[in-house]
Amino acid sequence: MSILETIQCSNDIKKLNENELVPLCGELREFLVESVSKTGGHLASNLGAVELTVALHRVYNTAKDRLVFDVGHQCYVHKILTGRREQFDTLRQYGGISGFPKPYESEDDAFIAGHASNSVSVALGMAKARTLLKEDYDVVAFIGDGALTGGLSYEGLVSAAASGEPMVILLNDNNMSIDPNVGGTASLLQKLRVKPGYMHFKQGYRELFYKMPSVYAFNHRTKEWIKSKILPENMFSAMGYEYLGPVDGHDVLLMERVLRWARDMKKPVIVHAVTKKGKGCSFAEEHPERYHGVGPFDPKTGEIYGGGESFSEVFGKTLCALADKDERITAVTAAMASGTGLDRFALRFPRRFCDVGIAEGHAAAMVSGMAKQGLLPVFAVYSSFLQRAYDMLIHDVSLQKLHVVFGVDRAGLVGSDGETHHGIYDVNFLRSVPGMTVFCPASFGELRAMLEEALYRVDGPVAIRYPRGGEGEYKAVSIEDEQIVREGSDLTIVCYGYMINDVLKAVRVLEEKGISAEVIKLNKITYAKFPKTFASLEKTGRLLMPEEVCAIGCVGRHLLAQASEAGIHLKAARFLNLGDNIVPHGTRALLLRDFGVDSDAMVRAAEGMCRA
Amino acid sequence: MSILETIQCSNDIKKLNENELVPLCGELREFLVESVSKTGGHLASNLGAVELTVALHRVYNTAKDRLVFDVGHQCYVHKILTGRREQFDTLRQYGGISGFPKPYESEDDAFIAGHASNSVSVALGMAKARTLLKEDYDVVAFIGDGALTGGLSYEGLVSAAASGEPMVILLNDNNMSIDPNVGGTASLLQKLRVKPGYMHFKQGYRELFYKMPSVYAFNHRTKEWIKSKILPENMFSAMGYEYLGPVDGHDVLLMERVLRWARDMKKPVIVHAVTKKGKGCSFAEEHPERYHGVGPFDPKTGEIYGGGESFSEVFGKTLCALADKDERITAVTAAMASGTGLDRFALRFPRRFCDVGIAEGHAAAMVSGMAKQGLLPVFAVYSSFLQRAYDMLIHDVSLQKLHVVFGVDRAGLVGSDGETHHGIYDVNFLRSVPGMTVFCPASFGELRAMLEEALYRVDGPVAIRYPRGGEGEYKAVSIEDEQIVREGSDLTIVCYGYMINDVLKAVRVLEEKGISAEVIKLNKITYAKFPKTFASLEKTGRLLMPEEVCAIGCVGRHLLAQASEAGIHLKAARFLNLGDNIVPHGTRALLLRDFGVDSDAMVRAAEGMCRA
Repeated sequence: MSILETIQCSNDIKKLNENELVPLCGELREFLVESVSKTGGHLASNLGAVELTVALHRVYNTAKDRLVFDVGHQCYVHKILTGRREQFDTLRQYGGISGFPKPYESEDDAFIAGHASNSVSVALGMAKARTLLKEDYDVVAFIGDGALTGGLSYEGLVSAAASGEPMVILLNDNNMSIDPNVGGTASLLQKLRVKPGYMHFKQGYRELFYKMPSVYAFNHRTKEWIKSKILPENMFSAMGYEYLGPVDGHDVLLMERVLRWARDMKKPVIVHAVTKKGKGCSFAEEHPERYHGVGPFDPKTGEIYGGGESFSEVFGKTLCALADKDERITAVTAAMASGTGLDRFALRFPRRFCDVGIAEGHAAAMVSGMAKQGLLPVFAVYSSFLQRAYDMLIHDVSLQKLHVVFGVDRAGLVGSDGETHHGIYDVNFLRSVPGMTVFCPASFGELRAMLEEALYRVDGPVAIRYPRGGEGEYKAVSIEDEQIVREGSDLTIVCYGYMINDVLKAVRVLEEKGISAEVIKLNKITYAKFPKTFASLEKTGRLLMPEEVCAIGCVGRHLLAQASEAGIHLKAARFLNLGDNIVPHGTRALLLRDFGVDSDAMVRAAEGMCRA
Repeated sequence: MSILETIQCSNDIKKLNENELVPLCGELREFLVESVSKTGGHLASNLGAVELTVALHRVYNTAKDRLVFDVGHQCYVHKILTGRREQFDTLRQYGGISGFPKPYESEDDAFIAGHASNSVSVALGMAKARTLLKEDYDVVAFIGDGALTGGLSYEGLVSAAASGEPMVILLNDNNMSIDPNVGGTASLLQKLRVKPGYMHFKQGYRELFYKMPSVYAFNHRTKEWIKSKILPENMFSAMGYEYLGPVDGHDVLLMERVLRWARDMKKPVIVHAVTKKGKGCSFAEEHPERYHGVGPFDPKTGEIYGGGESFSEVFGKTLCALADKDERITAVTAAMASGTGLDRFALRFPRRFCDVGIAEGHAAAMVSGMAKQGLLPVFAVYSSFLQRAYDMLIHDVSLQKLHVVFGVDRAGLVGSDGETHHGIYDVNFLRSVPGMTVFCPASFGELRAMLEEALYRVDGPVAIRYPRGGEGEYKAVSIEDEQIVREGSDLTIVCYGYMINDVLKAVRVLEEKGISAEVIKLNKITYAKFPKTFASLEKTGRLLMPEEVCAIGCVGRHLLAQASEAGIHLKAARFLNLGDNIVPHGTRALLLRDFGVDSDAMVRAAEGMCRA
């Protein structure tokens, strides 16, 4: 029996002898690589966090103490150590365990995580609750260096230090440029009889950095910059934290000792651990960006099993081609250069590219300044993360009618990342921004055409929303506002974007059942007149509109109201959508089935309307 | 002719002799007090920024150079100096000049401002555009110390320093606790042959601070804390800025010299000026918080002409009464303690109150941590500023169904603050948050009842939205989901919140015209069934719904769609709302008239529907 198999809950690990910890970490790494190679998931960051997590569980009881992850994709070891090891083959699968902390999954998961930089704020709220309610438990925020680039973390850090609440912030710094002038800290640690055993990291780091492909350097430029400029001056102790570090985050015994001290200080403490992303797995150490979020791969060689071309790649390539001909085009990302397909742009136009880190609000405000002064800025961002910039879309971009293009990637259901990552709100919030135009390409060709359209033939703010992954059966190209994809007489099915693929499937089934559906695809979903749609509704008298959005975001309801105001009164209308629900992880197909938005649901709804 | 009268544009001030500048500042202060005493507006911050603004205009040409204000209510002197002095009696009035920078008003206004902490991001975008397009102008961000509490400013500062773009950030620090250890800066300044002429501020500041009423101290605690903890260590030079300061911001000649140096350095520079809010006007110096945003007052004595009780005050009083009986209640504000009526709570329950500064995202994440651990947190915030926390409402609060109460103040049109401040998006974005309950009190009694209801008889996230100012003719109290205010037979008018007052007016006119309107007031506007409303629609067959929101936010359109799905098909429906428009400043009544949402518009719409 391996050591790992003896651990069912946070308390079991406390019974181990110190000399069992290093072997345990080895077993955990093997388990991680083996397991994630089958399910896909976040590999490199979890490999880097093995010792930190083991040490956390030696010191804290996560069933009672509150361990707040930041972003949360580094929670795998935590899940393995708290009774979920045997379910790991279901990781990120429909009905299986989530790739992020989930309180409904286990009491050991203190809080949801998925978006970055909130952990200190959340932990502070918990610490205040503990103190005000006179309860007795400890609170830890576990935050990576990437999350420090977000202003939210700064707000949280400032507020937590000012509060004086006992809590520990464990900074997992996996790319740190340590400068000699953190000397004050080193002496503090010595005073505490710690020997960090941490040497020459700076040199090692620099070698690593210069070996990396330049895209990776871009991705990480902001993070690096923050760390090299701010941490060495020790912003943390200036803020009022007791600062312990830098500590070698792969020395599990040392980490345990430091965390215990930190906990017992009963004040706001920062433990600054230095780790290596991908630690202990050669291919992940070498290409941490490739094994950050990864699909299934060969656990021996690291070979990643292929996928086809994605909307993101098409977006990046098209933008490069356009930028070749137009020097005003600039591209901005918030720590997602490769995810959004902008890595290519970064290499080709380094001066016209900017990765701001996890700072969507700043990105939106900055591009508005660019647009005001004559550039053509394009901000590529995941739908779910753009929620962070909602206010800037209105205040900075829209109120001055500035011409900024938003590449809204991962729009719709994103699959295995689940509820924190689904892009099911943007249709609603983008349409509320005054003057915003929203394009919905359904094919690569449409994405290409609409990006050009957005840059050159639209005024004011404009968004192009496209899904995760690649094309479906629909591969045609249209940039008409409303596109009649198929004529019919019994009902009108209106859709936009990738949903056309599901609609086409439903239409074929309906045809077999003798129901003739007219299909209209909206290529722009922003407030306007829809003459073709209205004409179709007058003809068929029935509207069915399936949408991969929350209920309040439904374009269909607005369409109906506008039709009604125009004097068109329907015999029947049905709107299929995700309701007011929280949508978990799973494949798009299974989730759409569960929420009644798939082609079967369309067939049922159409039959119900036409045979009533 | 006064010196002030000779200045029509940014260039005129450059022709003055140095010895005319101090008298000019005196004239500006007189003009400000006289003018704002009639129109109301932001007094104290503008009095504090007189010399800074004069110096900026001596050094920069704002018609070409880009001066980006942060928040922007300190732009009055700038407006006076750039051709808008004679329009100052129209300040913040319908059709008059805005109290905030507006590019459509003058080319001297580089960018819109109203929400805090974006200026560095915007200025950086402009500086990048200037450099990439090889143009020749200077860029300045003019930011107050309050705005530094926002994480967005941190994101901008980090990004701007890393970029190396030539730009100046003028920090107007009007409440600064200067520590002796800014020594490195002092010696830098000496090297530049500057004698800051700034002495013993620390002591003076402390005296001032301890004399202030404790509410004011609360309001400013976070700001102070950030400054005392971070600035003395000189975060700015650590970030990579050339840091000039602290400089006496009331020494206009010195400021001019320092700004000129800063401009000519051609790199990212921070000029740190120390000023006094309310400077030169005894009552404003003594009570800067009272004369921050102020209504008309007596320019001699400072006596503020009275207003009645407001929804904000009722909110604060009710929360105090409830907190007396329940120790779990905690109150959080983001730099708006007195604006949201929480000043009273802060005095009574200092340990259970938290002002986080201008950090709405952090506040929302923190209260979710509080709620998770058993407190009953209430976050009071202006509707327009809550836009900053949209993502946290979904990610941190809703996905875990946490019971947090949001007091959404200034919901609807806010009047003289204009387009950046209207609360016309919250209906839309709040309703998109899964599980969110939204209450809409229309009277003080309803606010009291609904706050209690929200705290004790609702699960999950809950918002209560109420308007700026006080009650209208409707003073009844109902907490039914749907309330039949008046029975009728020809059409159903559905409304919520304060709009009932306008509806009641319209109904009387309609009655005289022989049209019988049934009036339903929704007290909760969140996704649900509306049986009474549906019954009424079946009876009358006509729906009229006036709403003080953007078109996409219309509850009415969703109601119609839900009715239609339920098989209720109407003869006519009309939705009155603010459309996809940007709504300027002016009284609520005039704005509703212009956008066709007032009682006259209701009467016209009802007549059109009933007589068609």
